[in-house]
Amino acid sequence: MSTPAEIGLQRWHAIVESRDPAQLPGMIAADAVFRSPAVHTPQEGREVVCAYLSAALVVLGPELTYTDTWQRENDAVLHFHTVIDGLQVEGIDMITWDDDGVITAFTVMIRPFKALETVIAAMGKQLFG
Amino acid sequence: MSTPAEIGLQRWHAIVESRDPAQLPGMIAADAVFRSPAVHTPQEGREVVCAYLSAALVVLGPELTYTDTWQRENDAVLHFHTVIDGLQVEGIDMITWDDDGVITAFTVMIRPFKALETVIAAMGKQLFG
Repeated sequence: MSTPAEIGLQRWHAIVESRDPAQLPGMIAADAVFRSPAVHTPQEGREVVCAYLSAALVVLGPELTYTDTWQRENDAVLHFHTVIDGLQVEGIDMITWDDDGVITAFTVMIRPFKALETVIAAMGKQLFG
Repeated sequence: MSTPAEIGLQRWHAIVESRDPAQLPGMIAADAVFRSPAVHTPQEGREVVCAYLSAALVVLGPELTYTDTWQRENDAVLHFHTVIDGLQVEGIDMITWDDDGVITAFTVMIRPFKALETVIAAMGKQLFG
């Protein structure tokens, strides 16, 4: 039988591959929490988590490659690399799923500093126009 | 029998607890690589990796708490929290060990942005005076 992390990872990779956020709401818990690389305050609730992850798919998506995964029963750390405006971006997604493989927490960290600056600017443009 | 990651983690936690970098050189490979949260270019070689990790023990050390670990045979992702100048700092150490439990690669990522700025300033002061 698949673990919640296995179910969740399969769904997440399908979303990233399609870059179609239509399936996102169904895989995010109503009280899910998103911890962005930009600000300390957690972003709470399905709607706002969907908004951030949808924007991230646009900003990070085109060149996004997952290079490694540390996986447990209900959570995983995914190591990713991407390129934005010619700048190398490295980061991790730390995702927690409930027992049905639905996302309850999603934390993103990015290095180096210049990449984080660029991602924050691009995310701001995507989210707030 | 202990895995390289188990041996390496035990040594690393002993160093963090004592905050005494004297044991550091013996647990870092001659060609080890440090990827800082600040700059893209990898820092290579035992001496420079030792310098960065020693500075990190001073800057992040006093309040450093490891809250979680995703562990495999030869590597691990360690989730940490600390406080610098009253600012909450969250991050990960991504460590790879050779078969003898000696560090060959060490990557650090930090969130949020303000915490990363503060850590970079404090690390610069510690490393370059």
